[in-house]
Amino acid sequence: MFVEKVRTEGLAHLSWVVGDGTEAAVIDPRRDVDVYQRIAQEHGCRITHVFETHRNEDLVSGAPLLAARTGATVHHGPNPAEPIAYAETVREGHRFTFGGLTLRVLETPGHTDDSISLALYDPAFAPDTAFGVFTGDALFVGDVGRTDFYPDRAEEVAGLLFDSLDKLLALGDQAVLYPAHGAGSVCGSGMADREVSTLGFERRHNARLLLETRDDFVAAKLAEHHEKPPYFAHMERLNTVGAEPVRDTPPAPLSAAAFSEQADARIVDVREVPAFLGAHLAGSLSLPVGMIAAWAGWLLEPSETLVLVASDGEEAAAAATVLARIGFDRVAGYLAPGLPAWAAGGRAFETIPAVDTETVRARLRGAAEGWTLLDVRGVEEVEAGRIEGSGHQFLGELPACVGDLDQGRHYTVLCGSGARATVAASLLRRAGVERVDVYLGSMGAWKAAG
Amino acid sequence: MFVEKVRTEGLAHLSWVVGDGTEAAVIDPRRDVDVYQRIAQEHGCRITHVFETHRNEDLVSGAPLLAARTGATVHHGPNPAEPIAYAETVREGHRFTFGGLTLRVLETPGHTDDSISLALYDPAFAPDTAFGVFTGDALFVGDVGRTDFYPDRAEEVAGLLFDSLDKLLALGDQAVLYPAHGAGSVCGSGMADREVSTLGFERRHNARLLLETRDDFVAAKLAEHHEKPPYFAHMERLNTVGAEPVRDTPPAPLSAAAFSEQADARIVDVREVPAFLGAHLAGSLSLPVGMIAAWAGWLLEPSETLVLVASDGEEAAAAATVLARIGFDRVAGYLAPGLPAWAAGGRAFETIPAVDTETVRARLRGAAEGWTLLDVRGVEEVEAGRIEGSGHQFLGELPACVGDLDQGRHYTVLCGSGARATVAASLLRRAGVERVDVYLGSMGAWKAAG
Amino acid sequence: MFVEKVRTEGLAHLSWVVGDGTEAAVIDPRRDVDVYQRIAQEHGCRITHVFETHRNEDLVSGAPLLAARTGATVHHGPNPAEPIAYAETVREGHRFTFGGLTLRVLETPGHTDDSISLALYDPAFAPDTAFGVFTGDALFVGDVGRTDFYPDRAEEVAGLLFDSLDKLLALGDQAVLYPAHGAGSVCGSGMADREVSTLGFERRHNARLLLETRDDFVAAKLAEHHEKPPYFAHMERLNTVGAEPVRDTPPAPLSAAAFSEQADARIVDVREVPAFLGAHLAGSLSLPVGMIAAWAGWLLEPSETLVLVASDGEEAAAAATVLARIGFDRVAGYLAPGLPAWAAGGRAFETIPAVDTETVRARLRGAAEGWTLLDVRGVEEVEAGRIEGSGHQFLGELPACVGDLDQGRHYTVLCGSGARATVAASLLRRAGVERVDVYLGSMGAWKAAG
Amino acid sequence: MFVEKVRTEGLAHLSWVVGDGTEAAVIDPRRDVDVYQRIAQEHGCRITHVFETHRNEDLVSGAPLLAARTGATVHHGPNPAEPIAYAETVREGHRFTFGGLTLRVLETPGHTDDSISLALYDPAFAPDTAFGVFTGDALFVGDVGRTDFYPDRAEEVAGLLFDSLDKLLALGDQAVLYPAHGAGSVCGSGMADREVSTLGFERRHNARLLLETRDDFVAAKLAEHHEKPPYFAHMERLNTVGAEPVRDTPPAPLSAAAFSEQADARIVDVREVPAFLGAHLAGSLSLPVGMIAAWAGWLLEPSETLVLVASDGEEAAAAATVLARIGFDRVAGYLAPGLPAWAAGGRAFETIPAVDTETVRARLRGAAEGWTLLDVRGVEEVEAGRIEGSGHQFLGELPACVGDLDQGRHYTVLCGSGARATVAASLLRRAGVERVDVYLGSMGAWKAAG
Repeated sequence: MFVEKVRTEGLAHLSWVVGDGTEAAVIDPRRDVDVYQRIAQEHGCRITHVFETHRNEDLVSGAPLLAARTGATVHHGPNPAEPIAYAETVREGHRFTFGGLTLRVLETPGHTDDSISLALYDPAFAPDTAFGVFTGDALFVGDVGRTDFYPDRAEEVAGLLFDSLDKLLALGDQAVLYPAHGAGSVCGSGMADREVSTLGFERRHNARLLLETRDDFVAAKLAEHHEKPPYFAHMERLNTVGAEPVRDTPPAPLSAAAFSEQADARIVDVREVPAFLGAHLAGSLSLPVGMIAAWAGWLLEPSETLVLVASDGEEAAAAATVLARIGFDRVAGYLAPGLPAWAAGGRAFETIPAVDTETVRARLRGAAEGWTLLDVRGVEEVEAGRIEGSGHQFLGELPACVGDLDQGRHYTVLCGSGARATVAASLLRRAGVERVDVYLGSMGAWKAAG
Repeated sequence: MFVEKVRTEGLAHLSWVVGDGTEAAVIDPRRDVDVYQRIAQEHGCRITHVFETHRNEDLVSGAPLLAARTGATVHHGPNPAEPIAYAETVREGHRFTFGGLTLRVLETPGHTDDSISLALYDPAFAPDTAFGVFTGDALFVGDVGRTDFYPDRAEEVAGLLFDSLDKLLALGDQAVLYPAHGAGSVCGSGMADREVSTLGFERRHNARLLLETRDDFVAAKLAEHHEKPPYFAHMERLNTVGAEPVRDTPPAPLSAAAFSEQADARIVDVREVPAFLGAHLAGSLSLPVGMIAAWAGWLLEPSETLVLVASDGEEAAAAATVLARIGFDRVAGYLAPGLPAWAAGGRAFETIPAVDTETVRARLRGAAEGWTLLDVRGVEEVEAGRIEGSGHQFLGELPACVGDLDQGRHYTVLCGSGARATVAASLLRRAGVERVDVYLGSMGAWKAAG
Repeated sequence: MFVEKVRTEGLAHLSWVVGDGTEAAVIDPRRDVDVYQRIAQEHGCRITHVFETHRNEDLVSGAPLLAARTGATVHHGPNPAEPIAYAETVREGHRFTFGGLTLRVLETPGHTDDSISLALYDPAFAPDTAFGVFTGDALFVGDVGRTDFYPDRAEEVAGLLFDSLDKLLALGDQAVLYPAHGAGSVCGSGMADREVSTLGFERRHNARLLLETRDDFVAAKLAEHHEKPPYFAHMERLNTVGAEPVRDTPPAPLSAAAFSEQADARIVDVREVPAFLGAHLAGSLSLPVGMIAAWAGWLLEPSETLVLVASDGEEAAAAATVLARIGFDRVAGYLAPGLPAWAAGGRAFETIPAVDTETVRARLRGAAEGWTLLDVRGVEEVEAGRIEGSGHQFLGELPACVGDLDQGRHYTVLCGSGARATVAASLLRRAGVERVDVYLGSMGAWKAAG
Repeated sequence: MFVEKVRTEGLAHLSWVVGDGTEAAVIDPRRDVDVYQRIAQEHGCRITHVFETHRNEDLVSGAPLLAARTGATVHHGPNPAEPIAYAETVREGHRFTFGGLTLRVLETPGHTDDSISLALYDPAFAPDTAFGVFTGDALFVGDVGRTDFYPDRAEEVAGLLFDSLDKLLALGDQAVLYPAHGAGSVCGSGMADREVSTLGFERRHNARLLLETRDDFVAAKLAEHHEKPPYFAHMERLNTVGAEPVRDTPPAPLSAAAFSEQADARIVDVREVPAFLGAHLAGSLSLPVGMIAAWAGWLLEPSETLVLVASDGEEAAAAATVLARIGFDRVAGYLAPGLPAWAAGGRAFETIPAVDTETVRARLRGAAEGWTLLDVRGVEEVEAGRIEGSGHQFLGELPACVGDLDQGRHYTVLCGSGARATVAASLLRRAGVERVDVYLGSMGAWKAAG
């Protein structure tokens, strides 16, 4: 018997392979499904069942693809917003056996109406005591699922989640927790960076589970603020009908000439932040590989053709994989020569200066004319503390309003560390703002400076 | 934060890497330590601490090697049989912090006097509630440690283990269990093939923990029967002073001529059982890769030079790795041409027939003259059911008594499936017994036939 | 600039990736094309051209698949037996440039009418001197292509090949040779086991090129004897229209019960020869992984559903890959438990004894009644030396005549080493012959014994 | 039979594994020798011989390490500057046989006195015709070895090389060329970026071989200009006695705090050029991974302790591997958080602006006061064309004279593309020059702009 976790960075998405003997099940597979087949193969198993704990809104489900490849059946909870074309509906109490293991379905709505959890049993040993439970987006390590997807039914669904959590805790303190997300996910903000827990540990230390009454719980959930990127709607559509397989060819290297021919494509620079600041192509969007999962869904359209600027083919391939996981398939290639070689061909480049705390402070003191200190963090972060004199515009919503900015002003952009600020700065430059720099270190440096 | 398991097949040994931020600790590393460094590297960590839950008797510890490579310190419990040259002694209540995690020492003697457990805390979240515990050979999934290593103090140490388990359970139902062995180990016979559990699950379902009184527990432990292979003494010596690193060169392929020059070396055939039966070299010991960990310590001497017969270089390398883990370092190479090519060079080979239930039954019915049906399973297995008319000699002790067998008799060897029987048959043939065959299917087939 | 060789074992097929800058071409890709994309990616290249030196008859071409994945164009010589649906026709003198390299087409018919060679130039350095040449099946290291595919035009096509070789040699002694096959291929019998040569070396030492006149060359070619397995026709059909992609899922492990349910499937045992002799399933065909490429096309039908007996999942996957390369796609899974576990479930197995020279000699001397020594080697091998008293039946044609054998006779099968003999023995057993054994060592051992 | 090339990037060093049957030889192994063992293992060979074509001056030889691991013997030519402690001396005409292959020694002095070449024969096929030759640093694809290592005997050794090349060409046009370097090496400046050639191709197209008389050849060689980095002397010492094995632990990740504790270590920033420009640590040396092999030997001391700034652990490990290949072993770790996180901790960073052709041209036109355009390319490059008004100081010699620069001046640094200029700029900043920028695109952009 084995349980193996597959962590998808960026999305902090967790999927699981659980198997015994020659059979295995997969819970919440992502779109690039090779990894599940490899794990099953290593354990001498074939995949017989695929479960979705709910219709994922933050990534493309690999369930239909994995089923097509392996002959497994896909199982999904009741009451999805739209029928899931590729799945069979399961209900409370349904049991599935593979190898010597049993998974039992618990309907646990709240995050979504179709949310289920799956309790894991070793019948030969203890047929009635779950030794683990796959909780999807109902219960995480240190947090619970967000309940803001049905604005008209906000109280109702928060209450449903309270009941679902009660049902989960009734499985007993001994059950190991296997959730669908870890720290860093947009599906919950208070998750612990631990990824190991049990119902017993959560019962005692998860702040949301410590709220004793249903009313307190509902009130706390209603007070939360979550952002919902526009690509969620695209994911939901795809995960109703089933996405196409990821194409099996990594992005092609393009010479400078071939790259320049892609005049209509959007240029996405996936190199690390300082590399973008140091030199980049005019009009390119800064979006380092590690930030794609969180931000591409805000800043890019699935229908756009993209060309990448990457440090090497491996980085370009990693970027394309992450893009595909959230439904962005149109990557036409990447720039093969580095920026020095690009520039040595007589081609134009741009730079964005990084400035430090001393510089920002001096400008603030000087109340510099025509200068704006622009904070691009989320609402909750800004409410928790901001620099006096700064303006605010959430990065995710910048594309919609960047055209309204005064192109003649001088902007210094800040966030938590300078990473999101660089992304924002690239949007400002593209929108025609001439004078943009990035406060590297940002709020972190500001606080450290006292 | 991460906890990663490293499973060593054959020994069913589990070691663990636990890390956070840029620092990690390793619990009970095996001798080939690359895997721990790779895991740490993947998580962006350096290894700062190595812990041994006790002086391992069934495999060579990699703790001193890993410490030498990484600069980590090695920590070992109090009261080892002999001082551990490479380790610092830790005691009840000592705490070690790396990244944002804390490990707290619990002295948990019983299996050995120097046994410790290590409770795992996430201080920022819950400084007093362990979310996991590394239990070494004190507590397993479905079993507890064996307590037969101090025959003169049998009752005492069984009692010590009872107390240690009490101390462990006091950590709470919520703690995830990280033991040093899984199913298939010689360090406990009742382990579940699950490798996922919590103190809560064990408290409810582990047969040994369900014994309510200390006396009942001690009585149950005293009634157990365990085999202790002779190489344990060798391991204990090595793990006091620290073993040499594993050599970094896989076994060399040898042409038939070069192989034949190794006249003084012991020939070990690591191919699968049917391949050995089909054709093998005269005098060779059958010991398939997957059986090496369990049986080499009974059947080979660490001082012997070995040459392997393997299906290919990869299998030979795997065999050499397993041999090194239990202290057998002298592998001079492997036979590169397969048996057909060996035979096509005009070189001699032998075969051992596989016989089935029908044949064995007919011989038993006929009370064949000069024929013995020889059962080589362990005492506990034989006591649980045997074929009437069969003799018994435990495989592990066969080397000591094989010379006493009547070389003129015809032996059919059996075990659970035919695997150990083939190993035994190879020993009989080497000892000069002319007529040997193997009951393929053995007790499994016998029972299936009713 | 790089030239990388991809060797496909079993078929001894050589394909090539040649690239420069950010562009690469592939010559004669096999069906599992990932390897070409990986090589191109490692060199920072995208694949822009795919060339077929002729319509392959011995393996499935990957050209259309690779083109579909990468957007490359496929180029094929003129005069194919049937139009190649997925390729553009190239002619003498056509030039293709990618990166800084040029490939020039030479029409080199003889092996087939559509055979071309491709001379390789580095124009910046020496625009008129080829530094290498891809020769397909026209010229090999130590041999030339077979010319027996047009029986009605035997003399004509042998003469065409003579002229083609003249054209090749005119490129100069300095050109490195990049052929489509190495030693062990069915596409030529005299190839050197070297895979490194130049036109200069071949001109001096290739026995066929040392024949001075066209007439001598034609005569020599007409005197050759080649076998043509029945699957060649299937390959030729596939390589006209383009094969489907290989399925991306390795064979599934099957429990003994699940395996037994596949009652209509053909059982193919891909383990090594001695393992089959030691124990195997009734009715199974012995076909070790390394022999599949050479023999599956003689002994299996592409339309048959196959289930494998393999040592492990990795071996089963390797077998499925080789089967797919020659058009056998229907692998339903493999038996996961080994033969001992299979037998321990009370299931039947069979064995085939291996016998040695002494035994064979004794039987020959005794002129054993009802016994036949059956040689299954090829005609050319038998003509070069055989054991007096043996019968002969070429393994490839055994399926067609095995039904005519006397099921009551006792057969000892031999070949060069015992490998093909084991395959033949499995066919005899399946056809109902009760008493079959294999002369392990076979002609090799016979000669060594003098 | 196989010949496999191992290319060491940066040094453009080529080493070779040639094998047959179960035996293989390695020519000119580098210090990290795992790759040779892996290749031998894949081909079912053990390494029986190691050859050095001469005492390498540009990298650490792995010959003694490989011999210690495998039991192979090491063979070196006669007349080394100092005795090679770990090798046996071979002489003209010595033959070595492994598998079915033979290597014959040719003494080919000129590059060094101890240079040998090794002709490769397939005796069964053509005992007197070499099908390949390992030429070390005597003959390359498109160039010949440099002959500037004995300044007092410059004419003599150039003449010796002429004679050696004659000896090589006498092997015949058909021989494949296996040299010790490819394009990009400091051991010869005119090498083709092809890495495939034959003696026949070189005879016709290698400019140095087209010089007909010994005198013309010697004159041409004396007119060459080569740089000799100071670390060559260190390599020569190491390669006389044999270096220690590379340590088997990759650089440890260091938190910002742990990194800051390494106050005495030299900070080497191995990220790509634009990343350094965008943000870097004060006092750090810019040395991207791909430039280490060429420049570390000029700019660093083997005795210095280094700490790295890298994009991730993989890049840090790659950097440490390259450093070890040229004898720099003291890497104490790498900075784990990226520059944004470093800055967010309130820690200082610096930037260097990249400027373009327009800016440089404007400054030149304005004859800016206190401003210097500094060219850091090699002498031969500068002689082939420079920007009027620029100063020159070769990057390799900058450490020795950077202290003499006027710290108050404003420097714009240029090279071919901006890469070496960034390295130089980091040296200037470290030496206290306040105002430094880099002409990104440099001479390439300048020429493209006309």
